[in-house]
Amino acid sequence: MIALAGSWPAGMPSMVEPYSAVDVIRAKRDKHELSNGQIDWVIDAYVRGVVADEQMAALAMAILLNGMTDAEIVRWTAAMIDSGERMDFSMLARPTVDKHSTGGVGDKITLPLVPVVAACGAAVPQLSGRGLGHTGGTLDKMESIPGWRASLSNAEMLAVLTETGGVICAAGDGLAPADKKLYALRDVTGTVEAIPLIASSIMSKKIAEGAGGLVLDVKTGGGAFMSDPAMARRLAETMVRLGNDAGVRTRALITAMDVPLGFAVGNALEVAESVEVLAGGGPADVIELTITLAREMLDLAGITGKDPADTLRDGSAMDVWNAMVAAQGGDPHAPLPVAKEHFVIRADQTGVLTRLDALPVGIAAWRLGAGRARKEDPVSPGAGILLHAKPGDEIAAGAPIMTLFTDESARFALAQEALVDAVAIGPVGSVVDRLPLVIERINEESRG
Amino acid sequence: MIALAGSWPAGMPSMVEPYSAVDVIRAKRDKHELSNGQIDWVIDAYVRGVVADEQMAALAMAILLNGMTDAEIVRWTAAMIDSGERMDFSMLARPTVDKHSTGGVGDKITLPLVPVVAACGAAVPQLSGRGLGHTGGTLDKMESIPGWRASLSNAEMLAVLTETGGVICAAGDGLAPADKKLYALRDVTGTVEAIPLIASSIMSKKIAEGAGGLVLDVKTGGGAFMSDPAMARRLAETMVRLGNDAGVRTRALITAMDVPLGFAVGNALEVAESVEVLAGGGPADVIELTITLAREMLDLAGITGKDPADTLRDGSAMDVWNAMVAAQGGDPHAPLPVAKEHFVIRADQTGVLTRLDALPVGIAAWRLGAGRARKEDPVSPGAGILLHAKPGDEIAAGAPIMTLFTDESARFALAQEALVDAVAIGPVGSVVDRLPLVIERINEESRG
Repeated sequence: MIALAGSWPAGMPSMVEPYSAVDVIRAKRDKHELSNGQIDWVIDAYVRGVVADEQMAALAMAILLNGMTDAEIVRWTAAMIDSGERMDFSMLARPTVDKHSTGGVGDKITLPLVPVVAACGAAVPQLSGRGLGHTGGTLDKMESIPGWRASLSNAEMLAVLTETGGVICAAGDGLAPADKKLYALRDVTGTVEAIPLIASSIMSKKIAEGAGGLVLDVKTGGGAFMSDPAMARRLAETMVRLGNDAGVRTRALITAMDVPLGFAVGNALEVAESVEVLAGGGPADVIELTITLAREMLDLAGITGKDPADTLRDGSAMDVWNAMVAAQGGDPHAPLPVAKEHFVIRADQTGVLTRLDALPVGIAAWRLGAGRARKEDPVSPGAGILLHAKPGDEIAAGAPIMTLFTDESARFALAQEALVDAVAIGPVGSVVDRLPLVIERINEESRG
Repeated sequence: MIALAGSWPAGMPSMVEPYSAVDVIRAKRDKHELSNGQIDWVIDAYVRGVVADEQMAALAMAILLNGMTDAEIVRWTAAMIDSGERMDFSMLARPTVDKHSTGGVGDKITLPLVPVVAACGAAVPQLSGRGLGHTGGTLDKMESIPGWRASLSNAEMLAVLTETGGVICAAGDGLAPADKKLYALRDVTGTVEAIPLIASSIMSKKIAEGAGGLVLDVKTGGGAFMSDPAMARRLAETMVRLGNDAGVRTRALITAMDVPLGFAVGNALEVAESVEVLAGGGPADVIELTITLAREMLDLAGITGKDPADTLRDGSAMDVWNAMVAAQGGDPHAPLPVAKEHFVIRADQTGVLTRLDALPVGIAAWRLGAGRARKEDPVSPGAGILLHAKPGDEIAAGAPIMTLFTDESARFALAQEALVDAVAIGPVGSVVDRLPLVIERINEESRG
């Protein structure tokens, strides 16, 4: 057959647009590599509204099922960065370094981590998002602090960062707007779980954000987006490559998300637990992950001779936290919101807690009101779950395993439905098989 | 992990809808069979606007890439039928039988076929569509007849059918509205070429139309949707099974679409050629396919002892045609529209025409104005291509191969661009390898 540029049934070649959406979709659908021109155009045209949501949804599904080459992922990421502005922190006296987690249940690590790293001398511009689905969002957690304000102008953000060494705030609309639009679309079209799309989504925002260094916390296990460790590794490698190729010193830790992090799941509950850690207490796993990530960040920032653990003992991290919260209108000493209702789930036998799965706990907390089903929904600051035991702990019949918190008691039934089979108790002496907290470290040299 | 009904990240189970669009998309994406409940719901919810276009687009791409089981296709088709009304011709004295072609270049067979079969005593309710892409639409062709009106009320349609034995008109909005919406979506999202979606789209409309018998003309070759004969066979088998399972006696012919049918491609040009056939003349391939399809239709209608070829010789088919056209406001004797400009493509050497590919000819005619790029676009009734030779014909240097017709001379260049490599001339004595006009016959017994 003759060589037609895919002109059927895409429509006559447009006199204005150099490509047609249907041709781009068909190319990926038929397992061809998209050209640089096609990628640049489709992202730009999507932001302009020339490529419709239904066309991008079909393309996203074709990408999810047929994959992308490394060259396509690099170009796709660059096109998303070019859809918006890039930030510049080069005027700061301190080296900048950031962290990103792919999201987990009870993952409040950003809250203690930013002040810890700032207290060691780096500048940490943490531009965050809200929660969607069963994993919480950093901004939702921070907003449970009375008075705290997520939205800052660029000038305000720089002022907080300069003054305190850290800032946690909402990413502005100017950063990778293509990703913002595409992420919302993927969320409703079953096209979230694609490595090329996840990697380019995260890295376009982080590269545009302009920090000099970046540590990625890639979660794996039942409560993570990437429950399969091999997939998590591929995602980590892809993102580390994207970051370093774009001039951001990037490495990744693959960490466990089989069990919730810490004991608290839910917005105000996680703030309280984070403050405990900053005060020198708190759960061992939250402390360990905070310190481990802080060491990687300081290493990337070129800061030596500082032990982040010291900042928890000497109160310097807490000082940064209090300053950061206050700088955004929050009262770090005000009581946190408490949910109206609570319900205790107790052990039905004596033994060892052998399982406490992160995913159902996350879903239950979400259903209690800690998360949102649609991005317009409010979250309930006090809703969530407090765990009273973790896998491996001995537990007596009748002892509390977890307490559910909500403002609407009708939600208890929905939460309990999610928790069926989430917990198992074995005979005394049972040995529990858990993932190590830090499973693997991926740096530039691990590029596979 | 625990058995959650896919509740992440689809959102909290709705209190109103029994399924979530994201769950259905994810199921097909992950190669699961959709349940009857999921299929019924997703089609109904799409018509209601609860499932958004971008969600259906992602689902359509997942269906295209991951396929559907026979059970899924049957249920999907039934759900589309149930989205609208079903017609009932049981009050007619004559048996009803219909024909559907999957579309080809120069495929005007419906125009002579309906009057031929009606003249033999069957009732032929031909509810048609418009052209999109490089294949023409029956309604566009008929509308080049001055005064002819495509839209009829159900009562008007029945009146024409009762009076003349045949009717060609626009399918009303009430027939399979889910398919109407989905077809428009597939067209812009690169999800047309999926056998489950093509088969259910065609058969939902044809089954809802309620004819007692149905002959499918499934085109294969370069100018057809299904250029691969094995795919055409699978499509034919799927549709024959769907029809017979739903109580419509259905069979299919797989026919050649490597070369345009007849000599005329374009709306008024094809009407003129159809009238030639009805007058007892016309191209051999158009006559042969008309008669062959008519015999199958009469057989399904249980009409014996009639030779459809007689109706072309004795003028009885022409009488039906004239009555049908007049009943819808058309003047069967009025001159047809002629395009303002024409351009002749001539042979650059003496020899045998070895190739004349249907797809580029269809695209060229489309670009000349015979087809539309978007469904809102008008078509030009006089635009198109007249062929002066077919593969196997000897041709002298300088003799015309085809004449292009358009109302806008700027379109000649676009058409010629499509025609590069469409035609080949070999040395005198060259033997031309062509598909047989009728390649295979699929009836209920051929179910594979």
